[in-house]
Amino acid sequence: MIEIFFIGTGASVPTKERGLPCIVLRRKGELLMFDCGEGSQRSFLLHGFGVNRPMKIFITHMHGDHVLGVLGLIQSMGLLGRKRPLEIYGPRGLEELIETVERTVPFHHEYEVRIHEVKEGVVCETDEYVIKAILADHVIPNYAYVFEEKPRPGRFHPERALALGVPQGPLWSRLQKGEPVVVKGRVIRPEEVLGPPRKGLKIVYSGDTRPCRALVEASMNADVLIHDSTLLDNLREKALEDGHSTARLAAEVAKKARVRLLVLFHISARYVGMEHLLVNEARQVMENVIVPIDGQKLELKYES
Amino acid sequence: MIEIFFIGTGASVPTKERGLPCIVLRRKGELLMFDCGEGSQRSFLLHGFGVNRPMKIFITHMHGDHVLGVLGLIQSMGLLGRKRPLEIYGPRGLEELIETVERTVPFHHEYEVRIHEVKEGVVCETDEYVIKAILADHVIPNYAYVFEEKPRPGRFHPERALALGVPQGPLWSRLQKGEPVVVKGRVIRPEEVLGPPRKGLKIVYSGDTRPCRALVEASMNADVLIHDSTLLDNLREKALEDGHSTARLAAEVAKKARVRLLVLFHISARYVGMEHLLVNEARQVMENVIVPIDGQKLELKYES
Repeated sequence: MIEIFFIGTGASVPTKERGLPCIVLRRKGELLMFDCGEGSQRSFLLHGFGVNRPMKIFITHMHGDHVLGVLGLIQSMGLLGRKRPLEIYGPRGLEELIETVERTVPFHHEYEVRIHEVKEGVVCETDEYVIKAILADHVIPNYAYVFEEKPRPGRFHPERALALGVPQGPLWSRLQKGEPVVVKGRVIRPEEVLGPPRKGLKIVYSGDTRPCRALVEASMNADVLIHDSTLLDNLREKALEDGHSTARLAAEVAKKARVRLLVLFHISARYVGMEHLLVNEARQVMENVIVPIDGQKLELKYES
Repeated sequence: MIEIFFIGTGASVPTKERGLPCIVLRRKGELLMFDCGEGSQRSFLLHGFGVNRPMKIFITHMHGDHVLGVLGLIQSMGLLGRKRPLEIYGPRGLEELIETVERTVPFHHEYEVRIHEVKEGVVCETDEYVIKAILADHVIPNYAYVFEEKPRPGRFHPERALALGVPQGPLWSRLQKGEPVVVKGRVIRPEEVLGPPRKGLKIVYSGDTRPCRALVEASMNADVLIHDSTLLDNLREKALEDGHSTARLAAEVAKKARVRLLVLFHISARYVGMEHLLVNEARQVMENVIVPIDGQKLELKYES
């Protein structure tokens, strides 16, 4: 399971209802944070995620409402005793910003902050997932991030293992992880006891963007697309001029990409209490759409 | 009247109950902000002060919880249409910090941001008040700010004006403002129709500090002293080691300085729901003590 926490879902300026953009994916104890607007540390701490988890932060672009919160978060995690390194990915300028703050706002933290300025392509890869950056279409360079799990080994069939003479116990675990084992001098390959590999989850976060083809292609068949939906379509011209999307335009991207769930995000302060208008507009294009409120959580489960 | 708004009253790390340090004085439509921890812009905007008021910001020291909020506030005020210049006073490093952010986090605001790096002494003076910085005693340079109104002209006595042949009208206004007027060729001096000059209000904000003599001297006879009171006195050693004060130590400073009201400020997260312990401790030293909660307002009226 992957949990998506919507820490802050607003646009540009915080309101009583919506903080500045910040999303946290929690997966097997690791935290992946996307954008970190001012004030995110407070909500982050109140969520009780823990300050010493394996954690990576991905910044889409160098606008204040998406990046300034990372400065205080770094310091508070240090004060609260973080020991593990913190990996931060983002556009050019991020390293200078953080380094200047570490110099002019002196504060000793024991853990290491590792800053990675990204380009298009794979920005981070583990055994289990890969995260790619693609250039979306905003008024300054904005990287959308595509999180995609690698296929997991197929379902384990105990009856096949027993038939091949593999006794229940540690050898089963190794086969379940996709490793071959040796029983009585014979190599048993995982394919002999596992079903077909299972698809992992794919989640895309657009940051601030106009609708764009790169994002349609990168989001193909995603389980979730979290897309800029700053305005309603009656303000389409303004949205596009400012480098943003409307609910309808976001839905068109999601539909073209055959996304399973569209999350409308980066909601202008003018729609407080009128979020249903955004959802209704998007649903004229595709059915499966939500507008989360701050603090809302989405659980993504694997297909059985 | 001067209003003091306690925007954020916590220490180091924000909690559900207390944001990071930020205080706003409102006086005749002008806003004077002292410290601006992360998240202050959100509370500032929710207070509805207006984004285009004459405004000055005073930063006590370059620790993240006191200064990082100024970065987002500058941008949001621009987005919301500020036109007037914004004056920001603070220690060395402030200019480099703000300039780096303006360069790496590109954002155009129409209004001018004027940064003044301060030293001890008068940092700002108008016809009606003066603000001085004094070095308090923290682990890095921390300026306490002393706001003091100049004496106001004394009470106007209409019967004296009439006796001197000054007719009711614009001439009275000029005398009330302390200007001489001419009636039938004779100069009437304001002293002839006014009582003795009236004392203005004096408010001192310590920022983060151990108790120190400089602050006692600077706070002499202040109406309000807002003083670091991070911990209770059973943790005095820790407080002093970290450059802070306890409630008792703050009260001793206030008592020596014959302050009228002591405001305990910069409260550690460990005292949620136990603020009365801080007040009780301070009241063993002096009576007039409060611990404001976030959002609380204090009205200071002139003596009649």
